[in-house]
Amino acid sequence: MDVSATGVLLLSCPDQRGVVAAVAEFIAAHGGNIVHAEQHTDDVERVFFQRVEFELDGFSLDRREILSAFASVSEKFSMNVQLRFTDHLPRVAILASKQSHCLFDLLSRWRSGELPADIVTVVDNHPDHADLVQHMGVPYVHLPVTPETKSHQELAVLETLNNNQVDLVILARYMQILSPLLVDAYQSRIINIHHSFLPAFIGANPYRQAHDRGVKIIGATAHYVTEELDEGPILDQEVARVSHRDSVADLTRKGRDLETIVLARAVRAHLEHRVLVYGRKTVVFS
Amino acid sequence: MDVSATGVLLLSCPDQRGVVAAVAEFIAAHGGNIVHAEQHTDDVERVFFQRVEFELDGFSLDRREILSAFASVSEKFSMNVQLRFTDHLPRVAILASKQSHCLFDLLSRWRSGELPADIVTVVDNHPDHADLVQHMGVPYVHLPVTPETKSHQELAVLETLNNNQVDLVILARYMQILSPLLVDAYQSRIINIHHSFLPAFIGANPYRQAHDRGVKIIGATAHYVTEELDEGPILDQEVARVSHRDSVADLTRKGRDLETIVLARAVRAHLEHRVLVYGRKTVVFS
Amino acid sequence: MDVSATGVLLLSCPDQRGVVAAVAEFIAAHGGNIVHAEQHTDDVERVFFQRVEFELDGFSLDRREILSAFASVSEKFSMNVQLRFTDHLPRVAILASKQSHCLFDLLSRWRSGELPADIVTVVDNHPDHADLVQHMGVPYVHLPVTPETKSHQELAVLETLNNNQVDLVILARYMQILSPLLVDAYQSRIINIHHSFLPAFIGANPYRQAHDRGVKIIGATAHYVTEELDEGPILDQEVARVSHRDSVADLTRKGRDLETIVLARAVRAHLEHRVLVYGRKTVVFS
Amino acid sequence: MDVSATGVLLLSCPDQRGVVAAVAEFIAAHGGNIVHAEQHTDDVERVFFQRVEFELDGFSLDRREILSAFASVSEKFSMNVQLRFTDHLPRVAILASKQSHCLFDLLSRWRSGELPADIVTVVDNHPDHADLVQHMGVPYVHLPVTPETKSHQELAVLETLNNNQVDLVILARYMQILSPLLVDAYQSRIINIHHSFLPAFIGANPYRQAHDRGVKIIGATAHYVTEELDEGPILDQEVARVSHRDSVADLTRKGRDLETIVLARAVRAHLEHRVLVYGRKTVVFS
Repeated sequence: MDVSATGVLLLSCPDQRGVVAAVAEFIAAHGGNIVHAEQHTDDVERVFFQRVEFELDGFSLDRREILSAFASVSEKFSMNVQLRFTDHLPRVAILASKQSHCLFDLLSRWRSGELPADIVTVVDNHPDHADLVQHMGVPYVHLPVTPETKSHQELAVLETLNNNQVDLVILARYMQILSPLLVDAYQSRIINIHHSFLPAFIGANPYRQAHDRGVKIIGATAHYVTEELDEGPILDQEVARVSHRDSVADLTRKGRDLETIVLARAVRAHLEHRVLVYGRKTVVFS
Repeated sequence: MDVSATGVLLLSCPDQRGVVAAVAEFIAAHGGNIVHAEQHTDDVERVFFQRVEFELDGFSLDRREILSAFASVSEKFSMNVQLRFTDHLPRVAILASKQSHCLFDLLSRWRSGELPADIVTVVDNHPDHADLVQHMGVPYVHLPVTPETKSHQELAVLETLNNNQVDLVILARYMQILSPLLVDAYQSRIINIHHSFLPAFIGANPYRQAHDRGVKIIGATAHYVTEELDEGPILDQEVARVSHRDSVADLTRKGRDLETIVLARAVRAHLEHRVLVYGRKTVVFS
Repeated sequence: MDVSATGVLLLSCPDQRGVVAAVAEFIAAHGGNIVHAEQHTDDVERVFFQRVEFELDGFSLDRREILSAFASVSEKFSMNVQLRFTDHLPRVAILASKQSHCLFDLLSRWRSGELPADIVTVVDNHPDHADLVQHMGVPYVHLPVTPETKSHQELAVLETLNNNQVDLVILARYMQILSPLLVDAYQSRIINIHHSFLPAFIGANPYRQAHDRGVKIIGATAHYVTEELDEGPILDQEVARVSHRDSVADLTRKGRDLETIVLARAVRAHLEHRVLVYGRKTVVFS
Repeated sequence: MDVSATGVLLLSCPDQRGVVAAVAEFIAAHGGNIVHAEQHTDDVERVFFQRVEFELDGFSLDRREILSAFASVSEKFSMNVQLRFTDHLPRVAILASKQSHCLFDLLSRWRSGELPADIVTVVDNHPDHADLVQHMGVPYVHLPVTPETKSHQELAVLETLNNNQVDLVILARYMQILSPLLVDAYQSRIINIHHSFLPAFIGANPYRQAHDRGVKIIGATAHYVTEELDEGPILDQEVARVSHRDSVADLTRKGRDLETIVLARAVRAHLEHRVLVYGRKTVVFS
């Protein structure tokens, strides 16, 4: 065991007195040290959210015992509980199409140690990136798609994800709408980057739409994928100033920088177990 | 005449060779000095736009002769021409409702000399601001409105604007939709501040809409008013980062700062004759 | 008592196991409900910081008993403790000079209910703002200053602050360097706005310095005042993009918007008891 | 000849009447069409700057004749003149050390066609990047450096630059201070990225300095290299918000994104012939 490894509890429950104390007592009672705790209460919905990160070194419970021991707390407060360990690297698949900027950016960050993950496969429906992906040491799967082969191709994608026991799917400008089959199988585990400031410019060609509307700021949005297109819970957004001088090509170029940055930030938040989804929203702890 | 006064030509025409030279020659031929020139070509629509600012001191033509002398140029290139003089202060009316932050901000900037304008009247449909507006030395007109009196009230507003020979109308969070009558009378001369990042969250309660959607960035948009609600040409936009912690009240509070700043910037651009409207877009020169 | 009033504990101590649990237990043991808790550990200095906000309604201890009851916890962990109540409005003095934008912005926000404070006095070393300050219902004191009268004037300022039992002093572009006498008397309770992105452009005329250096971004910094000029702990900063087109006057004008916004944000953080100072740094909770 | 190729005149001269007209007339007289023109006057120094981009297709002068034909204009107004052609790609060398983010980002942008340049060599004083650079098809030169070999190594660098007839040198986090010999040879043609918001945190370890000072915003600065360290003319800057939660490692990671983006923007501005240097400042046209 990595002695600096920590456990992360992601909790949500109806807001009520004593939750914070009960969780803190549980950790303290087993010799744990809380290294980071953050909470949020949605005052409208009366829901309480918390992220508690604690040292595993010195903790008196074995990892496999923690959830059952915590049941005394979680049941009392009707909690939804997720438990993660920071030395268990999530297994990540990246799905890519023709555009490479998000794909290469994620691979670069991963190589430099910035993303706590195992990138176990890149699935690509264009052939162009095989070379560089393999050069970076990541298994590459080419699954081309046409309107006729779309359902078959998606089954092959799903199979690849399942065979690789993937924890997180990243759509790195993957230009195919996923079917409910895939979306349901990876609920709150598929992150997409949409090249607009959602909910503005839903659908195709958002930079063209932005140009036609004459906006002075463009954006990009990272969100979990749900069955409704571009309507999933938003993880992060970023914007940049533009002007009448910017053509659609300029917006596209400037937008690429937004897309890479906001996707990387969202992926990092997910991989660090800082995100809780509720309804169509997210709580993203710092 | 203020010796530092300048003339400003705002031009648009089909893109063609020789325009820049013809305009520059015209200014030079009459002893003028160009202190600022900026141009833009819309490569898709093939339209050329230019703003040329020149010193009036030493210019050989009388102000009233300039346009007719310039006709030789403007007719040759089928130009749309506006001529402004920076020592002629535009006459401005501010329309306000209950919320005061934009109103007071504009009055403060005007008092400190930041806005090259005469604020000739504040028309208010709530009674609350009379005191402070008058204290700042601006004529105040209280024109309350109810669903029943709306059309009468708007006629009174229009009359007030006309009587004051207003050049620009600023809707400083004025919570009434203007009728086509008023919009048509002041085409491209009414600036509204919408409290969202348009085209996201058109219509009522945009901060509530933003909260419900769970966006991570909010915005404000200054635009010219057209008959289609929230669809007019955008002058400027500004955004701020928010999080799951922000309630609708927090978004509203943070949004106020965006609204004041972006409205002031847009008004300033208009008053400095830096804006050209075409279709549903603007060219805003720097 | 306002039933929605809350208590706020601002804590710091050497980092150690069990702190979070001990604090949470203390609140829970007295029937309190934690509505917001946030913590931070400085891993380098090994210092733990926490802000705990809890409902007073239903809390079993009288306000005056809380600190002594909490001593069992605070002594065990060698804590530094501050206790605040949100229905006790801090008493604020604003010190102003010729420039009015920060002064009027703070007064406007205060009038609109945005600042949880009593503004008990405005001390001005220029005569210009008397009228508007009094119009807004705030006692106004004119204390002019010359090089000869500086030490006398500052004693009069100090006396005014003391007589008004001031909790927080805001230097709203107050163009006088305070003597150690005043700084010491209001340690971590004087907020200044410096018109640069500190530590760039310390000292006089920062916009001119910025112009001379040709920076592409300008900034403003709100900080607590210490004896070393422009070296106090930073509360907040804000920036804006500029270009070669911007004269010193343009930078000054654009900077005013930064100054008002960043000062208001910093003052709000202080008034909401979200700031802990340590060394020359701050922890500003969200 | 690429029929869409354009010529770019970068001009500066003492501010005087008739300059704009004379330049525009020159272009028009030879059948040229101005596709973009932008000007700036420094009112303090009384210097006029202009960038004029015109179509070469249909232009009646051969490229080699333009400057001598233009001498009638440039001599009259005592102009400093640079003439560039957009189908002549500048030859670029990238100098790198251990950190790869700027290097790979520039190579990615170049491969995707975003940078109008020939990257003719990467000179690296660490061995790590050979593989990927060569994979991207760029000649790679490994020139390690130690305190003892520094002057020899720099001569080898200079020789590599000269042999490759380099037009622009990019220091992509190159961690060596260049000697005057190299700086003088490539005056206004070496772009460095400094990992702070200059002039804050000059010198070594700016992120540590920023952390120690407790700033709430960090930055990065792209500038031309001059003999005075970190004092060269600034091309572009970018910033990001940070908080007390960010360790030096967090600042470093967040800063990498700033560095890559601001360096790419600055390089692009230079390669598009949009930059004029004067004194220790730049005019960067849009």
